[in-house]
Amino acid sequence: MDVEQFRKAGYAAIDRICDYFYSLEKLPVVSKVEPGYLKGLIPAQAPEEGEDFSKVQDDYEKLILPGLTRWQHPSFFAYFPTGCTFEGILADLYSSSVANPGFNWSASPACTELEVITMDWAAKLLGLSPEFYNSSEVGGGVVQTSASDSVLVAVVAARSRYLTAHPETKIEDLVIYSTTQTHSLAKKAAVVLGLGIRSIAVKTEEKFSLRGGELRAALEEDTKLGKKPFIMIATVGSTSSGAVDNIGELGEVLKEHPDVWYHIDAAWAGVALACPEYRESLYLPEINEYATSFCTNFHKWGLVNFDFSAMWVRDRKLLTAALDVTPLYLRTKQGDEGTAIDYRNWHLGLGRKFRSLKLWFVLRSYGVSGFQNHIRKGIEMNNLFVNLLSESKTLELVTEPSLALTVFRVVPPSAEKYTLEEINGLNSQFFKTMSVRDDIMITQTNLNGVICIRFAVGSARTEEVHIRQGYGVIEREGAATVDTWLRART
Amino acid sequence: MDVEQFRKAGYAAIDRICDYFYSLEKLPVVSKVEPGYLKGLIPAQAPEEGEDFSKVQDDYEKLILPGLTRWQHPSFFAYFPTGCTFEGILADLYSSSVANPGFNWSASPACTELEVITMDWAAKLLGLSPEFYNSSEVGGGVVQTSASDSVLVAVVAARSRYLTAHPETKIEDLVIYSTTQTHSLAKKAAVVLGLGIRSIAVKTEEKFSLRGGELRAALEEDTKLGKKPFIMIATVGSTSSGAVDNIGELGEVLKEHPDVWYHIDAAWAGVALACPEYRESLYLPEINEYATSFCTNFHKWGLVNFDFSAMWVRDRKLLTAALDVTPLYLRTKQGDEGTAIDYRNWHLGLGRKFRSLKLWFVLRSYGVSGFQNHIRKGIEMNNLFVNLLSESKTLELVTEPSLALTVFRVVPPSAEKYTLEEINGLNSQFFKTMSVRDDIMITQTNLNGVICIRFAVGSARTEEVHIRQGYGVIEREGAATVDTWLRART
Repeated sequence: MDVEQFRKAGYAAIDRICDYFYSLEKLPVVSKVEPGYLKGLIPAQAPEEGEDFSKVQDDYEKLILPGLTRWQHPSFFAYFPTGCTFEGILADLYSSSVANPGFNWSASPACTELEVITMDWAAKLLGLSPEFYNSSEVGGGVVQTSASDSVLVAVVAARSRYLTAHPETKIEDLVIYSTTQTHSLAKKAAVVLGLGIRSIAVKTEEKFSLRGGELRAALEEDTKLGKKPFIMIATVGSTSSGAVDNIGELGEVLKEHPDVWYHIDAAWAGVALACPEYRESLYLPEINEYATSFCTNFHKWGLVNFDFSAMWVRDRKLLTAALDVTPLYLRTKQGDEGTAIDYRNWHLGLGRKFRSLKLWFVLRSYGVSGFQNHIRKGIEMNNLFVNLLSESKTLELVTEPSLALTVFRVVPPSAEKYTLEEINGLNSQFFKTMSVRDDIMITQTNLNGVICIRFAVGSARTEEVHIRQGYGVIEREGAATVDTWLRART
Repeated sequence: MDVEQFRKAGYAAIDRICDYFYSLEKLPVVSKVEPGYLKGLIPAQAPEEGEDFSKVQDDYEKLILPGLTRWQHPSFFAYFPTGCTFEGILADLYSSSVANPGFNWSASPACTELEVITMDWAAKLLGLSPEFYNSSEVGGGVVQTSASDSVLVAVVAARSRYLTAHPETKIEDLVIYSTTQTHSLAKKAAVVLGLGIRSIAVKTEEKFSLRGGELRAALEEDTKLGKKPFIMIATVGSTSSGAVDNIGELGEVLKEHPDVWYHIDAAWAGVALACPEYRESLYLPEINEYATSFCTNFHKWGLVNFDFSAMWVRDRKLLTAALDVTPLYLRTKQGDEGTAIDYRNWHLGLGRKFRSLKLWFVLRSYGVSGFQNHIRKGIEMNNLFVNLLSESKTLELVTEPSLALTVFRVVPPSAEKYTLEEINGLNSQFFKTMSVRDDIMITQTNLNGVICIRFAVGSARTEEVHIRQGYGVIEREGAATVDTWLRART
């Protein structure tokens, strides 16, 4: 493909993407293809000779689009909606056109420098302490692929710091601390790194938030057993229910254990710190006071297209001390002189994409106020959902709504007559019914034994009408499931 | 930005990218900005109100482009050139427009299914054994971010397999095997995972290739010491010099050590297996016979834009057994039934981009023959460079050229009169001189104490004229450096 062919194909791609967004609302949210659907539609090997690109684009539309779950759909309320803005798409387009594996400053100065600057923009947007700014030259921010990677990096650095201070430690004694509501990323980090993990139980009556007393008790117990807790992964806005650990209490306890790294995973909720009115309930002052590292994913609620997990550390040397392995062919004048950040020493791999462009495009186009409006709108729409739900006889909240996330379940009349197991059965049945529909997508979870349903708002295209429609479907299907369930019991 | 504003901005972006490629050859390869250049040009915080997008695009051109190293430039011969095709750019554009963190099959069926199919296309393109195909339902292929991630995944799975077989093993006794010419990714994997590593010395007279005898000796020695080697990372096409370990001999030795995982890192050279005439020298039959896992980066020489590291395993269960942690909110009907691959259990994180689209677009547009032509052209152009160099009195090969990579150094007349240290000094001086130029980019390395220069061909835009120009510059600067160096000695 030469430049003019690219121009033609590029215009066509832009037009097709416009068509996609125009048609989005009329399309199903959930793809209804069966496993293996594509096998019969695509040859088993690459063509011997190249094909015309317009044919490839046609096939993308014909074969691929129908098999995609539409995370951009205004009625997508599953998992957490993912950022997908036109600004993000255009940044990815530019970034791909200058393909730069910017592992070193000198491998592509602009990639590093824009990351350095825009991560400070993001830190300021969220109200993080200047200690976390890159401009502090002590702490700093870096783009990771996902919150899983951010946690992996934190655990690796924490382990390195701990073992440097206590070289006699047996690896088998190291323990990662998390809670029973921490995202599976903590367990995955433990599995990947071959380390022990303790999930401290959180209580329903504490709204699934870990309190200082429980952390202290765990630390005392493990210390007696000779175990070495070396990192606490606390959560601000859990995946299951949006629960927020008591960051201040945990921080106070950890002050007595300065060897324990304090990582705060705010993968989903962290971007809400952009709005000053949520900073207290999301423990911003305590994050600023106590956190060793902090992470939030702009690619969830934060308008930036996947992948953009923002991670900050209070002391960048803790990352580079753990991750720097520099052979001659990666050494550069600027790196040797320490005049520039070499981001390869801040993450697990070597090559990295030019991703800060996305954040730059998004923050410039939306401005701080536009970003805040987006967050506030998501919360307002979730409030609408909660208001509607409060009128329902079939649906009940399982825990307090959190920002733009509601966790609820279906209940039969005179619910007190049934066991938890029975009502869980009803909810599994309800979720199965909902999973068959293609006009709305939601996900299930389990809160301390209670099977429940998550309704997560956050897509940039969701409006009031979609909330009302979605609620209507859920309420009707809920009532119908209860009817069926009651009939089956008589 | 609404859809029509996106259309306008999208056309403009395509036009600007066309301009970039038209002007590429006239632009410097190396950005000459100084560390911190961008700080004065961009405000220290995001704007309060959103700005017009055309202004953002203007700033991209004015502020960012000049700070990018031009990896796409035909005179970029540093590191290994990175893939950047129009097809890859368009695939990234489409992929970003449907932002899908396809961790599960059901999170977006097409993302998984196209990866399953195109990784088989790639396996067939390279001549891998059907045991590695996804269609085997035993082995399979997966897209990782970089070769570093592929190695991390292999080491984690190898450790898990070893510890399952030998649960009494002390973590401290585990050893990763590599060579002194293995890419720093092996050392980084050891650092990240907190495991021991042994770099077996390779010899200049063996062209930096690890032989079976040396591996056997190391295994015997370590076994006597109670160490537990559990993975051998062999290289096909090392970064420093394109060296190829003796895959067959190593495989034979490892047959006696079935607990040792055999990972083959062909990050750069692996794509050359697309050409049957290189399969023997790159040990394809032996890879097919012995490898537990195999990796090559299509984002280097393979025409696919970063990030696309292709990894295959002979037994997918070894990955999922090591990496599967599935909480309720990630459980799906298809995953539970085992009817679909959930790729999250094949890599370190959870979310993943829709990257198979890039490979699909590239292989359909180029066809197998076009892909082969690209590889052959790179090798031919490197041969031209080697032919020119063979006439030079100032330049000499340090080791045999490998495919599209030449490693050479500058030598003074009557080189035998000088120590290695002196000639190394001359070459460091030469590299410094070259680093000041902005019309060509090359990198340095060290081969068993010999400082040398790498010349890596592979950009899709490099033609004979660029090789001749590049050679001319190198030869002239080499001769001038020798003159200066000789004068300084008298």
